[in-house]
Amino acid sequence: MSDRPDVRESWKRLGSLATETVRTHLRDFAGDPARFASMSLRAGPLLIDFSRQRANAGVVSALVALARESRLEEAVDRLFEGGEVNPTEGRPALHTAVRAPFDERPPSVAAEVEATRGRVLAIAERVRSGRWPGVSGKPVRQVVHVGIGGSHLGPELAVQALVDRPCRVDLRFLANADGGSAIETFRGLDPERTLVIVASKSFDTLETLANARHARSWFIERTGRVDAMDRHFLAVTANPAAAAAFGIPPANQLPMWDWVGGRFSLWSSVGLSVAIAIGAARFEQLLAGAHAMDRHFRGTRLERNAPALLGLFGIWNSNFLGAGTHAVLPYDRRLAGLPGFLQQLEMESNGKSVRIDGERSQTHTAPVVWGGEETNGQHAFHQLLHQGTRSFSADLVAVAEPGHDLAERHRWLLANCLGQGSALLAGHEAGTDGPDAIAPHRGVPGNRATTTLLLDALTPASLGALLALYEHKVFTQATVWGINPFDQWGVELGKRLANDVFGALAGGSVAGLDAATAGLVAEVRKGSP
Amino acid sequence: MSDRPDVRESWKRLGSLATETVRTHLRDFAGDPARFASMSLRAGPLLIDFSRQRANAGVVSALVALARESRLEEAVDRLFEGGEVNPTEGRPALHTAVRAPFDERPPSVAAEVEATRGRVLAIAERVRSGRWPGVSGKPVRQVVHVGIGGSHLGPELAVQALVDRPCRVDLRFLANADGGSAIETFRGLDPERTLVIVASKSFDTLETLANARHARSWFIERTGRVDAMDRHFLAVTANPAAAAAFGIPPANQLPMWDWVGGRFSLWSSVGLSVAIAIGAARFEQLLAGAHAMDRHFRGTRLERNAPALLGLFGIWNSNFLGAGTHAVLPYDRRLAGLPGFLQQLEMESNGKSVRIDGERSQTHTAPVVWGGEETNGQHAFHQLLHQGTRSFSADLVAVAEPGHDLAERHRWLLANCLGQGSALLAGHEAGTDGPDAIAPHRGVPGNRATTTLLLDALTPASLGALLALYEHKVFTQATVWGINPFDQWGVELGKRLANDVFGALAGGSVAGLDAATAGLVAEVRKGSP
Repeated sequence: MSDRPDVRESWKRLGSLATETVRTHLRDFAGDPARFASMSLRAGPLLIDFSRQRANAGVVSALVALARESRLEEAVDRLFEGGEVNPTEGRPALHTAVRAPFDERPPSVAAEVEATRGRVLAIAERVRSGRWPGVSGKPVRQVVHVGIGGSHLGPELAVQALVDRPCRVDLRFLANADGGSAIETFRGLDPERTLVIVASKSFDTLETLANARHARSWFIERTGRVDAMDRHFLAVTANPAAAAAFGIPPANQLPMWDWVGGRFSLWSSVGLSVAIAIGAARFEQLLAGAHAMDRHFRGTRLERNAPALLGLFGIWNSNFLGAGTHAVLPYDRRLAGLPGFLQQLEMESNGKSVRIDGERSQTHTAPVVWGGEETNGQHAFHQLLHQGTRSFSADLVAVAEPGHDLAERHRWLLANCLGQGSALLAGHEAGTDGPDAIAPHRGVPGNRATTTLLLDALTPASLGALLALYEHKVFTQATVWGINPFDQWGVELGKRLANDVFGALAGGSVAGLDAATAGLVAEVRKGSP
Repeated sequence: MSDRPDVRESWKRLGSLATETVRTHLRDFAGDPARFASMSLRAGPLLIDFSRQRANAGVVSALVALARESRLEEAVDRLFEGGEVNPTEGRPALHTAVRAPFDERPPSVAAEVEATRGRVLAIAERVRSGRWPGVSGKPVRQVVHVGIGGSHLGPELAVQALVDRPCRVDLRFLANADGGSAIETFRGLDPERTLVIVASKSFDTLETLANARHARSWFIERTGRVDAMDRHFLAVTANPAAAAAFGIPPANQLPMWDWVGGRFSLWSSVGLSVAIAIGAARFEQLLAGAHAMDRHFRGTRLERNAPALLGLFGIWNSNFLGAGTHAVLPYDRRLAGLPGFLQQLEMESNGKSVRIDGERSQTHTAPVVWGGEETNGQHAFHQLLHQGTRSFSADLVAVAEPGHDLAERHRWLLANCLGQGSALLAGHEAGTDGPDAIAPHRGVPGNRATTTLLLDALTPASLGALLALYEHKVFTQATVWGINPFDQWGVELGKRLANDVFGALAGGSVAGLDAATAGLVAEVRKGSP
C-alpha cells in the first residue's frame, strides 16, 4: 500500500466536497439546533465541539473514510503494541505504555516502567515532604529543572497548569543556551537547599550540558563540597555513563528510554519535577487522565473518536480549505504554556516533507502552530483573525470551573471565549452600521473555523487527557500524511553549522561559511575584546 | 492615485522577478564575498543583514521603485508632520513626536508632550528613589501595571529587556481577563507599599477595568483607607472623568492622546512603569534611540533605509515568494517578549482586507507573526523550518555583547543564531550521508530567507531603535498595501458578542446566539452552581 494520501478515493472526494464547501458560509449552518449535538462529543472530562467547523455530515464521513483508507486503526494498534512506528530510527514509540497500568503495558516494558515510576514518585515525595536533606542537613526546598525541548516544555506546562500556589517547593526551569538565563535562574537560591535535575536523553545536548556545568560550578564554588553532588544532583537520562562521568552517581539517575520520544516524555521520569510540584498522587492522576484518553483513542469508533476527528479536521482545514496556520488560544492563564507545547508537538512531529516510504510528500504536512494566552490575544493579534487576508484554523480552549472564587470574572472570561468563536463564525456585514466612509472598514467576513475544547475543570486528569488528545491528533495526521512523527532529522544540520560558526567566532577560519555568515562573524568579532 | 498596489509597474516587474527567483537557490549567491557588504546596512547600534534574502540588485531596485510609486516618502513626511494618516478615525499618528526633542515635534503638540514627559520622569524618579510614601508613610516598593494590548506588551518587553536584576522595585504586569491572574499578581504584595498604575486610553476596557476594580478592593479591604487612593493609584488615560469617578484624582492622572495609538504608545505616559524600572535617564535614552531611528527613516534614501527595506523585503517574501508566516526568533532571553510585541504591532496594524479607499484588497496584507525565545525554538519548532512544507520568512535577532561575563556561553548562543541562518540558507542535499534508507529523511532543502538583526549591545538606545525600526516597517508595508495601519475595527464585533454571551451564561436568553454558542453555553451552565 502506498503511503501517499492524495491518491486515495476519499482524498479525491474531499477535494470535491471542498469545492462545494467554499461556496457556503458557516452562517448557513449556524441556526441548526441539531448541529451542536451531532458535532460535539465528550471524552471524559473534555467536551470537544466541532460544530463550528466548515463541514457537514458528508465531509465528516469522507474524513473518516480517509482515516480508514490510511489504516489508522491498524496503525493505532501497532503504536500501542510496540510496533516499529518509528522506522527511520528503528524503534517503537511507547509513551502510552509509560502511563498505562501494569497489565495494559506491552510485557517487554511493563516491569521497567513500574520500577521507574515507583522511583520517580518516591523521590518526589521525599523532596516534597522535606525528607531530602542537602549537604548541611537542611532539606532541599528549591529545585532547578535543567532540560530543553521535550525535556522542558511538557513539565513546565504541567507545573504552570497544576501547581497550587504558593508552591511548597521553589521550582525553576532552565533551558536556554543564553548564559544570562543560567545566571538569573540561580540568583537568590541557596546551594545547600537546592536540588538540580538534569534531564537529557543523550546527556550531550549543548544547552543542557552547559547549564548543568554552570549548576555544578555554582554548587561546588559555594559549598566547597565536590563530594556532595549526590545530595544535590539528579539525572534523567538514557546515557548513564555520561551522567556518571559528569558526577551524578547511578543511584541518582533515572532512566529515559529510546522508545519514548522527547516531546512525548512528560509521562516518564522527565516528569519528576512535575511530581515534586504536585505530589505523587496527583501525578498518577495526570497519567491516569492520559491513559483514559488512550483507551478512548484505541477503543472508540472513528466517527466519535476525539483525537482522530481533531486530526482529521486539521487535515480538512489545512489540506483542503487552505489554512496555512493553526492558532491555539487558551482562555485560562494556567494553560498559557499550551501554544508553546503544541508548537513543538505538532511542528517537530509533523513538519516533514518526506514520507515514510522515502518519497517527497505531494501534500502539505503540519501547519505553523502559534497562539497565545487569552484574552491578551484579543487585544493583540485577533484583528488579523477577524479582518486579515490569511486563512487559518484555531482551537479555543477553556475551563468551565474557574479554580478560584471570582465567579463573575470567570463568566466574562468564558463569554469572551465563546464570543470570539461566534464572531469568527458569523462575522458581520460591512455597511450595516457607522458612517458611510467607515462602514467598509467595519465588515468582518466570518466563516473562520474553530474547534472549542472545554474542560470541566483543570485537574491532573483533565490536563493528561488534553495532552494525550493532542498527541494522538498528531499521530492521526502523520498516519494520513504517511510520515513518521517520531523522528526529527531536520534539526541536525543547524547543530553542525553552529559548531563551525563557534570555531570562527573564537578566531578560527571563516572558510567554508557562506558569505553572509562570514560577514556576520566579522561584525561580531569587531565588538569582541 | 489609486491605493491599489498590484496595478503599479514595479509590482508587475516584481512578479516577473519572482518567477526568475524561484528558479534559483540561495546557495547560488552564498559564495559572493561582495554580497554581505552590499546587502547589509548599519543604522546606529543595529546591523541589519539582508544578504540572506532571495534577492539580487534588480529585486532591490524594483522594491525601492514600488515604495516610490506608493509615495512612501510623502507618506513619511505626512506621518511625522501630523497629517491625518489615520483617516478612518480622523486622526494623525504622532508617536514619533512623543520621542522627539522639543524642536522636532509638530508645534501643536510640542508643549503638551514636554509637560507630560516631565511628569512621567519625575514620578518615576520619586518612586524609584523611595520618595513616594504610601498610606503608612513607608515608601512604595511594589508596582502593579494594569493594562492590556498596547498598554501592556511594549512596557513588559522594555522592562524585561532593560531592567538590571535584581530590580529596585518589584514590578508586575496584570493584563488578562482571567480572574486568577489578578489573584496571583497581588499575592504577597503589601498594600501599604504597592503602587497601582492603571493604563487604559478609554478607561473602559473590560479587562483593565475589572483588574483595576480588583486592585481597588484589594487595597481598601486591607488598609481600610478609602481616602488614600491618591497615594497608591495612578491612571494613564485619555478619559480623565472616568478615572476620577473610579477614584483616581486628576493630580494622579497622566494623559494619553488619541493621536498616539495603543500599540505605538510605549514612548508616552504608558511607559511610566518602564521609567520606574530603569530610571529617568535610561528612559530618555530609550526615546532617543527611537528618535535616532526616526531620523534615519525620514532622512535616508530608500536604497539604504533600514525600516523601508525591512518592510519591502517582507512584501517580497509574502506577496511574491509565498511566505504565509513570519517568524521572529530572538537569540537573547532579554528579548523573549519581542515575538509577542511584534505579533501585535504587525498583525493588529496590517491584518486588514480593506484599503484606505474602502475597496477590498486584492493582495495579501500582514502575515501571521509568530516565534519564540531561542535557542528553545531550535528544540521545538525548527524541524518544520528546515524540513516542513510551509513557506515562511524569519528575522533572527541577536546581541553582540553578552551583558554578562559568561563569554563562551554567549559565543555559543551567537554561533547558534548564525548557524541556523546558514542552515536555512544552504540546506543539505539528501542522500549524502547516513544509511540509504534514512538518507532521504536527512535532506534539508534550504533556500529559506532570513534577515539578521544584530544589536551591538542591548541598551535603552538600541532597544528604542529596534522597536522604532519595526514600527516604521509596519508603516512602510501599510503604505504599499494602501491600508490604514492605525485603526483596528476588526476587534469590535467580538467585544459585542462577548456581552451577549455573558448575559446568556448568567442565565439570560440564548436566543440570537448561533447553535454552537448556545450549545456551549448550556454545557457551561450545567457545571455552574
